[in-house]
Amino acid sequence: MKYSSKVLQCNLSPMRKFYPYAVAASAAGKKIYHLNIGQPDVKTPQQFFDAVRNFSAPVLEYAPSPGLPVLMDAIRGYYGRIGVELAEKNLLITTGGSEALQIAACCILDDGDEVLIPEPFYPNYNTFVRTAGAAIRPIPTFAEEGYFYADREKVESCITPNTRAIVVTNPGNPTGVVLTKPQMRMLLEVAVEHDLFLIADEVYREFVYTDEPLASFMQLGFGEENLILIDSVSKRFSSCGARIGCLISKNGELMQQALKYCQARLSVATLDQIASAALYQVEPEYFTAVREEYRRRRDVVVQELQKIPGVLCTKPDGAFYLMARLPVEDAEDFQRWLLEEFEDQGETVMFAAGGAFYAGGRGKDEIRIAYVLNERDSARAIELLGLGLKKYNETR
Amino acid sequence: MKYSSKVLQCNLSPMRKFYPYAVAASAAGKKIYHLNIGQPDVKTPQQFFDAVRNFSAPVLEYAPSPGLPVLMDAIRGYYGRIGVELAEKNLLITTGGSEALQIAACCILDDGDEVLIPEPFYPNYNTFVRTAGAAIRPIPTFAEEGYFYADREKVESCITPNTRAIVVTNPGNPTGVVLTKPQMRMLLEVAVEHDLFLIADEVYREFVYTDEPLASFMQLGFGEENLILIDSVSKRFSSCGARIGCLISKNGELMQQALKYCQARLSVATLDQIASAALYQVEPEYFTAVREEYRRRRDVVVQELQKIPGVLCTKPDGAFYLMARLPVEDAEDFQRWLLEEFEDQGETVMFAAGGAFYAGGRGKDEIRIAYVLNERDSARAIELLGLGLKKYNETR
Repeated sequence: MKYSSKVLQCNLSPMRKFYPYAVAASAAGKKIYHLNIGQPDVKTPQQFFDAVRNFSAPVLEYAPSPGLPVLMDAIRGYYGRIGVELAEKNLLITTGGSEALQIAACCILDDGDEVLIPEPFYPNYNTFVRTAGAAIRPIPTFAEEGYFYADREKVESCITPNTRAIVVTNPGNPTGVVLTKPQMRMLLEVAVEHDLFLIADEVYREFVYTDEPLASFMQLGFGEENLILIDSVSKRFSSCGARIGCLISKNGELMQQALKYCQARLSVATLDQIASAALYQVEPEYFTAVREEYRRRRDVVVQELQKIPGVLCTKPDGAFYLMARLPVEDAEDFQRWLLEEFEDQGETVMFAAGGAFYAGGRGKDEIRIAYVLNERDSARAIELLGLGLKKYNETR
Repeated sequence: MKYSSKVLQCNLSPMRKFYPYAVAASAAGKKIYHLNIGQPDVKTPQQFFDAVRNFSAPVLEYAPSPGLPVLMDAIRGYYGRIGVELAEKNLLITTGGSEALQIAACCILDDGDEVLIPEPFYPNYNTFVRTAGAAIRPIPTFAEEGYFYADREKVESCITPNTRAIVVTNPGNPTGVVLTKPQMRMLLEVAVEHDLFLIADEVYREFVYTDEPLASFMQLGFGEENLILIDSVSKRFSSCGARIGCLISKNGELMQQALKYCQARLSVATLDQIASAALYQVEPEYFTAVREEYRRRRDVVVQELQKIPGVLCTKPDGAFYLMARLPVEDAEDFQRWLLEEFEDQGETVMFAAGGAFYAGGRGKDEIRIAYVLNERDSARAIELLGLGLKKYNETR
């Protein structure tokens, strides 16, 4: 049988190849500290579950294709509080931020088009761009420069006649890099000047550790035709399993195209929309506490990493990830070894090998750490990484 | 800004143009009988809501990308009971049957490819096929022949070197046509002989009024490389708002491609999966009662339609739709007139104009009726249609 040439260029998750090793290690009684996945351990606010339990309609009906008004109103209220006025037509509820990304790609990309994305980047961007017929052109960044990309010359030098959009994750996954307001302004200016879309994936907006107020590209007040925002309740409210996100833009033509897609897939899960609306009633103290918790985890992880000889990492300002360069040639081989051959008091550690976050070739000696474990476990996990590195390099 | 040439070829829902007229009619105090939408009024089984209320994990986490084992097991059990043995790898849980269709299109279609679909067809197929770069080539059917399409010569005459797949909705939306086992066998044989995928959208499987046992293309026992099944809990358990469907195939290569997409969009809503698993514990009596109810509604609708001079319709065997030809030139104009200018004792009626179910040009004098109202309301709705037709044609 013949398959789509587009999907053939996509990849299965690069993380899954370690799954059998992890299963075998667990089966052998090893405890694994998971720094490899972005699933927060923070409790989902009770408001979500209360709303679910209070649902009492006899029939679980389709929601309207653009989204349930109760959730759209809640999201518009949230944006209003950070100074962004959204009309109902500026917003489409999606099945997670993932579907918002997929719809955006499907609305603006044609075969042969290119999308600029600072590298390293979230690997799933590749599938959304590829299945729309386009390709990612990476904006290269470097560990030594703290993965800095917001340089006008650097960005503009990557633009070609095929470029349709710039995608930025801010705060960044996997790097934790957070843009300043002037950097955001510069990037949107570049998009406007070159007639490109700027797709701002801001799902980690609340996770900034610099005491700056919540920042969104939407606050800049210009470039409305160019800007597409991706948002989600997954990380904000530790509700990844709700699969509720949204696509936001003040570009009316884009939103009409996106609505075609939303109508074709009918609607987003009704109960999850109702429950997610309730999440927006969570008090500000919730975020303060969560942010403090992650700030402490980040500090522990960075502090412990910096004790390990040969490890290069910069303290990230946001999200709950960081990239680190290890004194190894091949982080994938090291990961396999950690699962198969290493242990310290019956324990070992998992991270995400860095190559997966690069478009091709680079990043083989890097890893992404998701600092989603509590402080004690984080410290122990990084200790295991250090012990493993020492032993791995001694035996090479 | 430049938009995808693919999405520009898609359409907004053709039904939405009547929405403002309906709102105005309601505002003017008219009661509207809705035969235009496929939202059943059947109560969602209590098992769904009980499972939702019993969820007690503190964090609403991502489900695994292929689906939650509890739901996959429930679906495999259901198929086992109709004689279809499915391995876990034959099944991917999706966000409604809609996402299963979208993933199937994305995995097998390239630019310039064609998909054969008996016409009239479910309009959203167009968006899934178009955004994958391909186009629908309709297999024409006719009201006078009861929208019959399962003729080998008819189907084979539509196959070109660009054909990649045949899509059939069985039982059919919008026609209610139900295939016999020999017809199903013939269609799958054609797919195998011509190296095509057969995408069988079987979401209305339970809704057959001929006392035949539940039928699936999967029961045929051949063509495993060619067959892709689309399924969903939406209609089966009147749980449209759960957005839980699945993609089923024994073609390992296809499922690997589909898994790439499933991993990129991370997962399907966790709670809805858990609750949908519980739906599969519903007793067989539930389906018997629902089927009887729809059979009675169908009988009333067909009986009343046949009393109206100039209306042509065939009694459908399945789903809860039928197509009817009206003695008007333009069903859209008639619908607008029914909402704006007609009433009988303060009441009027809505249907779906037929043109939307055709690839281009045909069906303008046809309508699709969703017989989702109880018997009394169904009879009154068709009475209103007849009164409207008489008056509309008198004033022309």
